[in-house]
Order: sequence, then C-alpha cells, then structure tokens
Amino acid sequence: MKFEFQNPTHLVFGAGTLSKLGEVVSSYGKKALLVTGSGSVKRNGTFERAISSLKAAGVSVAECSGVEPNPRLSTVERGAAIARKEGCDVVVALGGGSAMDAAKVMAAALFYDGELWNMMAGQENRKLPSQALPVVTVPTLAATGSEMNSGAVITNEKTAIKSFVTAKCLYPKTAIVDPELTASVPPDQTAYGICDLITHVTESYFNGVDGTPLQDRFAEGVILTAMEWGPRAVADGNDIEARSQVQWASVAALNGWVQVGTASPFPVHMIEHTLSAHHDIPHGAGLAVVNPAWMRFASRIRPERFATFASRIFGIPMQNPEDARAAAEGIDRFEAFLRSIGCPTRLSETGIGEKLLERYATDTLLVARDSEGRLPGRPPMSKEDIADVLRSAL
Amino acid sequence: MKFEFQNPTHLVFGAGTLSKLGEVVSSYGKKALLVTGSGSVKRNGTFERAISSLKAAGVSVAECSGVEPNPRLSTVERGAAIARKEGCDVVVALGGGSAMDAAKVMAAALFYDGELWNMMAGQENRKLPSQALPVVTVPTLAATGSEMNSGAVITNEKTAIKSFVTAKCLYPKTAIVDPELTASVPPDQTAYGICDLITHVTESYFNGVDGTPLQDRFAEGVILTAMEWGPRAVADGNDIEARSQVQWASVAALNGWVQVGTASPFPVHMIEHTLSAHHDIPHGAGLAVVNPAWMRFASRIRPERFATFASRIFGIPMQNPEDARAAAEGIDRFEAFLRSIGCPTRLSETGIGEKLLERYATDTLLVARDSEGRLPGRPPMSKEDIADVLRSAL
Repeated sequence: MKFEFQNPTHLVFGAGTLSKLGEVVSSYGKKALLVTGSGSVKRNGTFERAISSLKAAGVSVAECSGVEPNPRLSTVERGAAIARKEGCDVVVALGGGSAMDAAKVMAAALFYDGELWNMMAGQENRKLPSQALPVVTVPTLAATGSEMNSGAVITNEKTAIKSFVTAKCLYPKTAIVDPELTASVPPDQTAYGICDLITHVTESYFNGVDGTPLQDRFAEGVILTAMEWGPRAVADGNDIEARSQVQWASVAALNGWVQVGTASPFPVHMIEHTLSAHHDIPHGAGLAVVNPAWMRFASRIRPERFATFASRIFGIPMQNPEDARAAAEGIDRFEAFLRSIGCPTRLSETGIGEKLLERYATDTLLVARDSEGRLPGRPPMSKEDIADVLRSAL
Repeated sequence: MKFEFQNPTHLVFGAGTLSKLGEVVSSYGKKALLVTGSGSVKRNGTFERAISSLKAAGVSVAECSGVEPNPRLSTVERGAAIARKEGCDVVVALGGGSAMDAAKVMAAALFYDGELWNMMAGQENRKLPSQALPVVTVPTLAATGSEMNSGAVITNEKTAIKSFVTAKCLYPKTAIVDPELTASVPPDQTAYGICDLITHVTESYFNGVDGTPLQDRFAEGVILTAMEWGPRAVADGNDIEARSQVQWASVAALNGWVQVGTASPFPVHMIEHTLSAHHDIPHGAGLAVVNPAWMRFASRIRPERFATFASRIFGIPMQNPEDARAAAEGIDRFEAFLRSIGCPTRLSETGIGEKLLERYATDTLLVARDSEGRLPGRPPMSKEDIADVLRSAL
C-alpha cells in the first residue's frame, strides 16, 4: 500500500441541519449561485427553507434550476454564465448527484481557460481545473456521495459521451447532509440510490489492488449497513432513522475512506455511464443491471475474491478459497437483494435492447482505456468483453 | 446521528515515504523544530535520513530530543522555548505518540496566552488553543494515531495528572507514515501498539451512542485487521507487509473515521492515563490490563453489546441477543489474544500493586467527570467502580 489522501470537506450531518445552510454559506460568500434539479425541492418546500436560511444570513441568491438527471455540458455552461453575470462568490448545490456534480463544474468553470470539456477524462489534451468558487452541497438523495468528494460526472449531449473529472479544487467546502430532505424520495429512486452507493464500494472491492484488508472490511461494512437499512428506507420513506443510516453509508461509500490505497478503476460505472448517456436512464438503475452481469464475468477469472464476498456478506460457506459455487451463489444473492428493493437487473427492464451493444462498448473505451485499449479493471475488458457482459444482461 | 466532521490532515502513506519529508516540510516553513523521543531514531539511522531530507530541501533544523514515553509538561515547555528562541516556523515530530503529542502542544504553545496546562481537560478555567505552527508528523511506532488527529496527551509531573487536549489547530498539516520506520520496534512495544490501536475503537464501540451501525462495522474492521496482521508484525518485525497493515489500522483507528458520530467518551483510556502518570508504564501495556477488566464490568450492565462483539469478532454463536455466556467468552478470547502477542493483562505484571487504587480512581475523576462526578462511559463509573475494576485486574 502506497498512497496519499486528503479530504478537507467539512461535514455537517443529521436531521434538521438544513437550518444551518445560511450560516455556513455566509462564511464563504455573499451571493450564492443556487443550483437545483428538476423541481422536487420546490414542490416539497426544501427550496423555500433553503432560501429563507440563506436570506436570514444575509446571502443573496441567483438561481440555476432545471439541472437534468444526467447533467449536460450545456447546463453547466448555462450555470457558469449566470454565476459570472450575477457576480456570485459561492455555489450552493441543493439536489441529487446531478445538481451537485453540475455545481462543482460550474464553480470551476469561472476560472477555467478553454473548452470546459477539456477537463474530462478521455480527452487527449486534458487539463484539470485548479481553482473553483467555494461549493456547499446539500444532497436531497442518498446515492452518489458527491457531497463529500472531488468528483463530477457530466454528459456531453452532442456526442452522447458521459465522462468524469476529479480535482482537488472540486472538494466542497462544506456538505450539509440532512436525511429529512430524502424523506420524499420515492421508493424506486431510493432503491437506485442504495444500488449506487453499494456499487461505489464493490468497484474498489473487486477492482482494487491486492493487500488492502482494512479497506475490504470497510467496504463490507458499507454493504452490510446498506443491506440492513436500505429495505426499511424503501418500505417507509418517512423512517428517518433508516434514511439517516442509508445516507451516512452513501457519504462514507465515496468520500475516499473505503477506496483509499486501492488505486481502483470503476469499470461498472464506466459501462453504465455509456448506457445513461444514450438512454437517460437513472444511473443507479443502470448499475443494478450492469453490476451483477459484470460480477459473473469477473468471477470466472478471480473466483476467490467473489467467494470471500459471498462468505462475508451472505455467510455462504466456502468449501475452498476459490469456491466457484460459493462465488456464484453470492452474486445470485446480491442480484436478488437488488430485485427485492425494486431495482431492475436486466437491460430489457430499462428499455434498452441489443441494437447498440457494440456502440456502447466503443463509447465506454473513449472515456477510459489502458495502453492496450482495454477498459481498466480486474480483469481489463476488451470491446468484446464489454459487449458480452451487456449481452448477458439483456 | 448528528455530528460534524472535518479532518484536514494530508496523509502520505507507504514504505519509503520518509524520503519526502524535506519536500513536504519546505512547503510549510524554513526552520523546523525537530522533536524526537528517547534516542532510537538516532541509533537506527532514521534521524540522519530525516535531517538529510530536510537539509536537501533547504530546511534548517533546531532540535528538541529526549521526549519521554509519557511526555511531560516541562518537556513541552522546553521545546516551545527552543522553537521561540530559534525562530522556528514549522514543527516536525519524528517518533512515537509521545513525540507527536508533545510536538503538537509545543506548536500551539507559541501562540497560547497563559499557563499551558490550562488547555488540558479537567481544568476549571480551561481555554483551548486556537493557533499553532504547522506540524508534520512522522510516526515511528504504530499505536496512538496521533499522526492524523487533533489530540495530545500530556503529563503534569508535579501533580502526576495525565490529561488531554483536542483542538482544530492541532491537526497535523501532513502525516508521513512510513511503515519501514517501525521495523526496528521490539516485539513488546509492537504488541502494546496493537493493543492501543484496538482499544481506540473498542472505546467508541462500547461507549458510543446507540444507532451507529456503520461505525460498528468500521470498528470491527480495524479489530479484525489488527488481529490478523498484528501477530505477524510481532513475530517478524521486518515483515513490512504486516507492519504496513498494522500501521494503517492504527491511523484509521483514531483519525475520526471510526469514532465519528459516536460522541464517545474514552473511560478505559482515562483510567490507564492515571496508571501511566503514576508509574510510567507503556500506555498500551496499561490498556491491556484495564480494557478486559473494564469489559467484564460493563458487560454485566449491557451484555447484548458484548455478545455482538463476541459474535462478529470471534464467531461465537449467540443463543439470544443478550447472551451473557457469549459475551464473557468474547472477552476471554480478546484477553487471550492480548496475552498471545505478549501484552500483560494483570496489574501485577506491570509492577502495580493495590496500595493506591483509591488514589488512581480519584485522580481519574479529576480529568473527566460528569455532572454527578462520575467517569463518563457506558455505564458511568463512580470512584468505587473504578477502584473495583482495577482491583479485579490485580
């Protein structure tokens, strides 16, 4: 293990903490660009509460609403233009992963020289952003973990490519995580969020370097906690205790504590990003389809890892360390869990057919590829491997 | 769960990273106060390598060596005086927990108004430090976790009181954690460090608030990792893989990732601090004596928690959620583990007799007490409880 780690984000967690928004934001700026999604925060009153808190603290607001579920480059450019025109000195994201990711890139856009898309993975002359306005995140969905990390995922709608950027300047200054704000999230979106957060840790669990036993235990802890409390949050959205546990798991799943030292690529995410770029399906639903199919593919090469997963998550006994039957049973049980909370696990359930499988594979490799042109992961995947995995999930 | 969290320390982890010391320190200052312990770093060459790295980066050095195992207030004052006289603008701690803790308080001393001891817990007119020189920590022992947290433990040798301070300004700027530096730590000190790191997470596991399932899993992950790799580090000090896993567990055990949201007091530490203040025994050895005795005491009031521990750490089956027999067996197994790596588990093995038991209890309550004068924890402990626990460990 050899790594560097630093996550400077100040986390404010707990039911009712939205009331601190104004006080927190006023310590960073006087005029906020308030970035929101498709309108649920306005319908359920969260938006008004946020505005009141900001105004009471003397923070004025310029609004950028309507960030779509898979946020587009043009939306980021629109938000950045508003911030520039209105002289904003702080950015507040109030919404799900899309609002938060878009807000981060808007905050960096004001200082970025050249085409914004040049900061995204896969670009030949890529240039990472080095400066951004302070960002405060207020997630209204437990899923992406974007509230406490330095990443953002954006879709270029002209090319149907979804890519990502991670940079130190994109860490939010403060994340205000108030589980009450997730109470109105419907059961399907709640389930997709649970799948998303679990996939964040299965990626590094299965694709990270060898010899990270503590990270393994932390990943298992996130999975076990999400599997224990997730079904309760799906069954009763107003169970704030369940909402709290799921949301805390979603924060810890991708704030770096689990991935640190694993140097892990995220192949399942890369494949799913292509699907949601083309079809605008919910990211978490796409992951529920891709992840079990990918696991079956990868377990043929490395059964021991999946047997450990089966044993530690589901208590499935291993006959030997490379027990392929235990590995397969663990994946079946995992897929069954996803179905039990209401996730799709077949492409056909999301309305995606076999027509463009090769295209999805090609597009995925435009965003992430090793020196041999394969998708990084364990094992690395050729274009055919990616298409085969998707075909197995039809 | 309701909490705030922020740990801004930049962590550089891995074998060989000592070579980065000069480059790192030069980004914070030009003249370093180099704080070291009782001389092992000079005997094994680490000191020379550190000096070379600092000089190559243009950093000059003022030395404060000889920080004793349970660092004293007078030593902190001596170091602060050197820093002041030599015009140091950065503090480097190269050593175990004592060197790091002393270095942190030296760094704060330069900006602190009044008696230094006034910043310590238990003082009536306590005033926390608000500013400190930048600190870079380089631990040579896997134990205290001080390298990546904001705490320090100091002994007032005039009163034989050992107390602690935690303050935001005490977070090290960077921690350089190079497991190779721990290769020369002898088996007994290695074992005490393992006990120390495990006790950091058992404190919050057993004394934290209810309803922190993810923290429970993280704590169990630290314990299981330390129990898996600890014996290998004790058996062969040059097993750098084992040293790495143990040291990484020690960092994560007390950088806040496990304790976050648990609002946990540390009663076992409070009791042990009194023992090592009076008798100068190694802190980790004292914990190995106090922790199992405390666990037996606390398990009588809350068997369910200890039964869970027994089940998840040792795979001991529970007949029911409050299975007192399983709870007791788990504690026995834990104590046996500590003995197996070479820790004492009885007071008599550390040379401490029954003469001053009441005094230890009284002194402990001088540092930490609730509104009813009891030591905070689950359950809170009266003076008699503390003395009884110590008596049971004679």
